[in-house]
Amino acid sequence: MKAEIVSIGTELLLGEITDTNASYLASQLPLLGIDLLWVTQVGDNLERLRECLEQAWGRSDIVLTTGGLGPTEDDITRETIAAMLDEKLSVDAELERRLRELFSRLGFPMPKSNIKQAALIPSARAIPNLSGTAPGWWVEKGRGKQGERRILIVMPGPPSEMRHMWETGVVGPLREILQGEIIISRTIKTLGMTESGAAEVVKPLLSSNNPTLAVYAKTDGIHLRLTAKARTGEEADKMIAQRESEIRSLLGDIIWGSDEETLEGLIGALLLEKGLAIATMESCTGGLLASTITDVPGSSKYFKGGLVAYTNEAKISYGVSSSLIERHGAISSEVAADMAGVARQHLGADIGISITGVAGPAEDEGKPIGIVHIAIDNGREIRPILGQYPPWRHHVKRRATYQALFELRRLLVSMK
Amino acid sequence: MKAEIVSIGTELLLGEITDTNASYLASQLPLLGIDLLWVTQVGDNLERLRECLEQAWGRSDIVLTTGGLGPTEDDITRETIAAMLDEKLSVDAELERRLRELFSRLGFPMPKSNIKQAALIPSARAIPNLSGTAPGWWVEKGRGKQGERRILIVMPGPPSEMRHMWETGVVGPLREILQGEIIISRTIKTLGMTESGAAEVVKPLLSSNNPTLAVYAKTDGIHLRLTAKARTGEEADKMIAQRESEIRSLLGDIIWGSDEETLEGLIGALLLEKGLAIATMESCTGGLLASTITDVPGSSKYFKGGLVAYTNEAKISYGVSSSLIERHGAISSEVAADMAGVARQHLGADIGISITGVAGPAEDEGKPIGIVHIAIDNGREIRPILGQYPPWRHHVKRRATYQALFELRRLLVSMK
Repeated sequence: MKAEIVSIGTELLLGEITDTNASYLASQLPLLGIDLLWVTQVGDNLERLRECLEQAWGRSDIVLTTGGLGPTEDDITRETIAAMLDEKLSVDAELERRLRELFSRLGFPMPKSNIKQAALIPSARAIPNLSGTAPGWWVEKGRGKQGERRILIVMPGPPSEMRHMWETGVVGPLREILQGEIIISRTIKTLGMTESGAAEVVKPLLSSNNPTLAVYAKTDGIHLRLTAKARTGEEADKMIAQRESEIRSLLGDIIWGSDEETLEGLIGALLLEKGLAIATMESCTGGLLASTITDVPGSSKYFKGGLVAYTNEAKISYGVSSSLIERHGAISSEVAADMAGVARQHLGADIGISITGVAGPAEDEGKPIGIVHIAIDNGREIRPILGQYPPWRHHVKRRATYQALFELRRLLVSMK
Repeated sequence: MKAEIVSIGTELLLGEITDTNASYLASQLPLLGIDLLWVTQVGDNLERLRECLEQAWGRSDIVLTTGGLGPTEDDITRETIAAMLDEKLSVDAELERRLRELFSRLGFPMPKSNIKQAALIPSARAIPNLSGTAPGWWVEKGRGKQGERRILIVMPGPPSEMRHMWETGVVGPLREILQGEIIISRTIKTLGMTESGAAEVVKPLLSSNNPTLAVYAKTDGIHLRLTAKARTGEEADKMIAQRESEIRSLLGDIIWGSDEETLEGLIGALLLEKGLAIATMESCTGGLLASTITDVPGSSKYFKGGLVAYTNEAKISYGVSSSLIERHGAISSEVAADMAGVARQHLGADIGISITGVAGPAEDEGKPIGIVHIAIDNGREIRPILGQYPPWRHHVKRRATYQALFELRRLLVSMK
């Protein structure tokens, strides 16, 4: 199966946004055994869009488009596809009803221009959009004289809507249609080594053709991605499982999860399972730790609250010892430990986590940018962690946040 | 001048890397008055690469390629261009000398395979690579029978090498060749209307060809982008300024900034200017407001700290009135107002901001997902804001955070 992506939007050609939809889809298609051969970015221009779509429809078995489904006049994906396939657009009553319902839930009347988002052509069925107003289209149609069936999948441009639609409305139906080789992937997630360090450790496995192994640096650590091809899913699963156990014995406890797992999701599940609650006190991460913990639906069950202390006065007002700050500086393992204890007690939690460090732009207390002290206090012991990260503000905030969650997960796993 | 980008590399089609080269070049071309009409990603496959390059060479005045200039066998950009233009590749003595010199400076002998990086075709001149081994190519040649001159610019794939080459070896020569139009853009940022609502208001301006106007939905509100073409920068600036003032009179105070400005950056600058400090108390945004405020370098000068209160007990422990919570519920304008006051007083700030609402996954206190109360207390008055957002957790967190910053900016601007 040959696939092609057409990414639609003048903002791509102006360099205002980067086409992360294409790279996301490109990473997903191999898992279905689909070869991606072309990606084209084109603006919201009827003539050029039509030319691109005709080329794609003429040479590929599956064409995926993203973008151009908004309510405004410059969004012309639907109109162009209708023209290319020589079909007539008309408003679908059921789609219109759902759209009006969505707006009424949002509490305001539907703008007139949104009605075009309820339009279909005869050979398209709507793909529900669970996080936005524009439904996608699934078009199956014969092409040319031979009448081979081709698939055109039309998705919205905002990355979160596109991914959600892909996961909930596209992967399943595609998998049903496809036959042939099965490709299965598994991502093993680690924290605590550099990309090249991890690659060095698993070096003998990197030259394997099946399963393949690739190493990627991500914000939540280093990911190792295994991909196996086989006749059946079982066979591929077996190949992956065997290679995974080799990797696990090489990398040990720097592995924290796999596939879609997130550190914040894992610690949430562990806390629920153990009936424990946490609280945070942050300095240099400025609330990012609390915000990441609360990205998990239902986190109110185990997250008591968080204190963001950007100044020494704020730390002291929460109850951190001023003499410790004077003696060791606010960026010290001693103050980190005290902050964790104060968070735990002040908020009535079982576990307190703290982060204090230098996010930049300048060094602080004579300590360089990127130095971070983390502490976890579970009421019986206080675990100190020292981190040092690349000296860029966003890196320091993110890396420190994920390291704190990683260490918390380790502690929770070890607690009986 | 019509330009086209061909991004070369199988790793793009596997989703292993995102094509940031294309978005970088896309952002640079308008500054030279060059229209980018197509971007294509293609793998390291001779047949398909040749097909793409021929299409580009046939329809565009300037073709820019990135990638496929490495020393290994799968790097075939040079070979494919030579075949397409029907020219012979040969090693250039001067390029070979420079390449060997580079390796000897790096302290190891040149691998045999690198010699292909010294190859040229007769119509190409080398573009020096100041941060890698592969020189680029600058090809100028007549096309077809009419013999119109076309330009093909061949650059390496690693983003830092590509950018460096673009800046030092491509922009200058391109600028010399080009005559004609300057393109200037300006983005006006708003919050408080939907995409289609904003488009409705500026509708008469949307059909203009020069300057053009486009409307985009972003996480921090609705952006309106003006793009003007003219003979000189001054003329383009004038066109933009005139259209911008029309837009400003149509949209009024929902406009909060322009171009690279961010809400968190603007409120930071206003707070510094006025010598004021803020503090936050958040419920449903879980620390995202504090984290966004502290994304700004130097925010420690005006951000006193933040309280994240995910439970009623945490709110009460910080000093929020339990009887107000009992009477009105935690998700109410009364409790939001109290939270803002507590944050202000507790942390010794001039201004307190609070957010309380329902982020989901379920409704709370009988209030639907997406309902959010924001309050800003500046010690003299308390400004209450009611928000209602699409019922998805991440949306609610982000939209509420940006709305709070938007309202804070409004208040700061109005304070004498």
